[in-house]
Amino acid sequence: MLNYRAIVNILSAMLVFLAASLLFPAAVAWFYQDGDLNAFLYTIGLTFVTGISGYFLTRNNGEIRARDGFLIVSFSWILFSLLGALPFVFSGHIPSYTDAFFETMSGFTTTGASILTNIEGLPHGLLFWRSFTHWLGGMGIILLSLAILPLLGVGGMQLFKAEVPGPTPDKLTPRIKHTAELLWVVYLFITIVETVLLKIAGMNWFDAACHTFGTMATGGFSTKNASVGQFQNPWIDYIIVIFMIIAGTNFALHYRMLRGKLNVYKHDREAMFFISVIAVASLIIGMDVWQRNGHHIATAAQHSIFQVVSIVTTTGYGTADYEQWSGLSQLILLLLMFAGGCAGSTGGGIKMIRIMILFKFGFNELKRLLHPQAVLPVRIGNSVIPREIVTNISGFFLFYMALFILGVLIMAALGLDLITAIGSVTATISNIGPGLGGVGPTDNYALIPTTGKWVLSFLMLVGRLELFTVLILFSPSFWKK
Amino acid sequence: MLNYRAIVNILSAMLVFLAASLLFPAAVAWFYQDGDLNAFLYTIGLTFVTGISGYFLTRNNGEIRARDGFLIVSFSWILFSLLGALPFVFSGHIPSYTDAFFETMSGFTTTGASILTNIEGLPHGLLFWRSFTHWLGGMGIILLSLAILPLLGVGGMQLFKAEVPGPTPDKLTPRIKHTAELLWVVYLFITIVETVLLKIAGMNWFDAACHTFGTMATGGFSTKNASVGQFQNPWIDYIIVIFMIIAGTNFALHYRMLRGKLNVYKHDREAMFFISVIAVASLIIGMDVWQRNGHHIATAAQHSIFQVVSIVTTTGYGTADYEQWSGLSQLILLLLMFAGGCAGSTGGGIKMIRIMILFKFGFNELKRLLHPQAVLPVRIGNSVIPREIVTNISGFFLFYMALFILGVLIMAALGLDLITAIGSVTATISNIGPGLGGVGPTDNYALIPTTGKWVLSFLMLVGRLELFTVLILFSPSFWKK
Repeated sequence: MLNYRAIVNILSAMLVFLAASLLFPAAVAWFYQDGDLNAFLYTIGLTFVTGISGYFLTRNNGEIRARDGFLIVSFSWILFSLLGALPFVFSGHIPSYTDAFFETMSGFTTTGASILTNIEGLPHGLLFWRSFTHWLGGMGIILLSLAILPLLGVGGMQLFKAEVPGPTPDKLTPRIKHTAELLWVVYLFITIVETVLLKIAGMNWFDAACHTFGTMATGGFSTKNASVGQFQNPWIDYIIVIFMIIAGTNFALHYRMLRGKLNVYKHDREAMFFISVIAVASLIIGMDVWQRNGHHIATAAQHSIFQVVSIVTTTGYGTADYEQWSGLSQLILLLLMFAGGCAGSTGGGIKMIRIMILFKFGFNELKRLLHPQAVLPVRIGNSVIPREIVTNISGFFLFYMALFILGVLIMAALGLDLITAIGSVTATISNIGPGLGGVGPTDNYALIPTTGKWVLSFLMLVGRLELFTVLILFSPSFWKK
Repeated sequence: MLNYRAIVNILSAMLVFLAASLLFPAAVAWFYQDGDLNAFLYTIGLTFVTGISGYFLTRNNGEIRARDGFLIVSFSWILFSLLGALPFVFSGHIPSYTDAFFETMSGFTTTGASILTNIEGLPHGLLFWRSFTHWLGGMGIILLSLAILPLLGVGGMQLFKAEVPGPTPDKLTPRIKHTAELLWVVYLFITIVETVLLKIAGMNWFDAACHTFGTMATGGFSTKNASVGQFQNPWIDYIIVIFMIIAGTNFALHYRMLRGKLNVYKHDREAMFFISVIAVASLIIGMDVWQRNGHHIATAAQHSIFQVVSIVTTTGYGTADYEQWSGLSQLILLLLMFAGGCAGSTGGGIKMIRIMILFKFGFNELKRLLHPQAVLPVRIGNSVIPREIVTNISGFFLFYMALFILGVLIMAALGLDLITAIGSVTATISNIGPGLGGVGPTDNYALIPTTGKWVLSFLMLVGRLELFTVLILFSPSFWKK
């Protein structure tokens, strides 16, 4: 039996939090006086009143369980996107609600796919809000809320289970509230460092903050039409590269590093695999770009490293049009789109640790042909991965493929060509942003048909919440009893 | 310890069998007097002498084991292709040995990918041999040999395990030799029926036989440049459609049906799933072709059904250029290329039963989120699929994807565009023949670079032998001790 009263209560509390978050872009709008302040004030009022009344009407509710947790996680993202889209509509800058919802879901899921054809035409408040949805979504609106909801007397280990990205939530402390607060401080600290560095490198404070939000969340919304490429500044490129890699790595490692364990990354197999993938892909693509396009070797390196890191971390910032590159380079980038970052990072995609486990599992099956009786556990480093987790990861991979195929079929049925269908589905399910074909790095999602925008929004949500969290809601037995 | 003496002995015996098989195309060459007879006689002589000497030099060998079996299976295909390619080279009609090997491997693996730009320019003997390699490969050269090798005193349950396509070899009788003979008779019987029907429908005996070989093996080599489309005869189209479906279904079912159990297909979940997939895909593509291309509804049905069946059974005959169809139709065909036929058929690809099991497995993982303690076995009909088999199938799928990706990367690195790289790898690993892009239904493999032809030949072999049979040879522990 689902505890609807408690679900509404928590979701309402989160709307109050959303209303509070909207004060930041409202302040920006007030500061710059671009005319978008009222759009924020209306939204804040509506969100706050809805949240506060929902909250007080549903006090005195019972215990919440895992099943309620799944519903809360999925609907928090949906509600935030539904209401977070309003400033775009109220201000008249994105008149279509479908477009505004797509843009906001893309923000909160840290995807970075945009329907805007002229980003620079937006007022500062809306640009800030767009990037800020990334930042809020980045570490997980829910993980965020884990530091607030406990104050309201709501425990949430079940939420943690459903929320933290990746298969192996590295438990920093047994107390979930404390964990959330610690990770939050780490997230905030790194955010401040990147913003300051980008300012020093030549950005103004506004652009530095917005691009930091997009980096930390592996989101990818920029304030410029030509994305990061607009700045033509290698310092900015490499600062963002480093922070994209940081954002794509398990935050539990960063926490330990900041506590003084400096060699924590070296001992983490996933982080080392992640770095190796980036190095190999950058090398191959760099050679390719260098040879074909006749660039200076430094430019080829800069472009290939930036694009590889941006794609594999599922950020989606761009400094070069990779659709001008060779088939091989494009193919490698397409594969990296599926791969994604590390577990426990803000990155999307299948995730490095899953890929490592699937590889080892596959080779074990080969070995079993020779030694049918042998017990062959999957090992990562010194630890044995329990069989249930290996099975779960296989299931995850199958669903990823099935959803990908279903998505591409639907987009093709809506009239998209094959490459655009594949590109748009990959870029949304893996929360990247730019894809291939008609939604490549120099294009946008404006021309996708309305139905397609809703389908892609759904894929962003499902991809961001590690599939099962959302898909379980479609199982009849979820709603039974 | 591998029993090399026994391995050489069996492979030598099989070369004698190959020499005997070459008498059929030699007879055709003698009958038509096109000048290719000597090419066959040289090859027969070389093959027979090698085989007979190898056989007598390695008599008195010990017991063979599973490990030897893997080596025998893989090398029988390789040896047959190495020697079977010679008539093409000796006759001068395919001067490049790489091309001749590619064509022959394509024949024996029942792929049907061709490097020929003018098929009709070939003499009858070579055309017959080309199609006959399909027929021999179809039921499996090895399964074929199971009826012969036992006469030589060699048992072979381990061969059966490695050879019979698909994860569930339906054991007709406990005695392997008897099984092989029974299936062989069924195969021969259906072959004769199709040949006669094609003759009645309007083909000459030569074309009827060659197209039957291609159908029964789900191969796809035609004697005509425009494939089956050349005949412009709906009777021929539909006869071939029916026999492609038969060839793509488990032969154990046909055996039971011929023994009088007429409703055996209705009770087989895989066969029913197979038929449903064909029906749904034909319907969607038929509607699409009908609406867009303005064909008569009967023509649209004929074209869509033929192409769907040809692709899903991994045959590869063509009557229409599906690259002129919509993105959606092409995408469905691309997915069918991966799907393949039923286990125990001559079809390639992943196979229907594996896809069914993977789907059920995926949904079970979803259910486990709600009921973490529940035991949820994978069921097909009334039977529970053992956990080891489910695990093995997951591993198979992962390797299929990994090999596909690796293959596409290599082909792209060789300079092929993305669509051609994807099309050529899919069409060879799934043993179809025609793919997409530069190797589409109206193209051929002539322009693939030499390295690429060897890579694709390897993929045909690996795909045909259900991956593990070949890949295990690359495991260091296979060669140990």
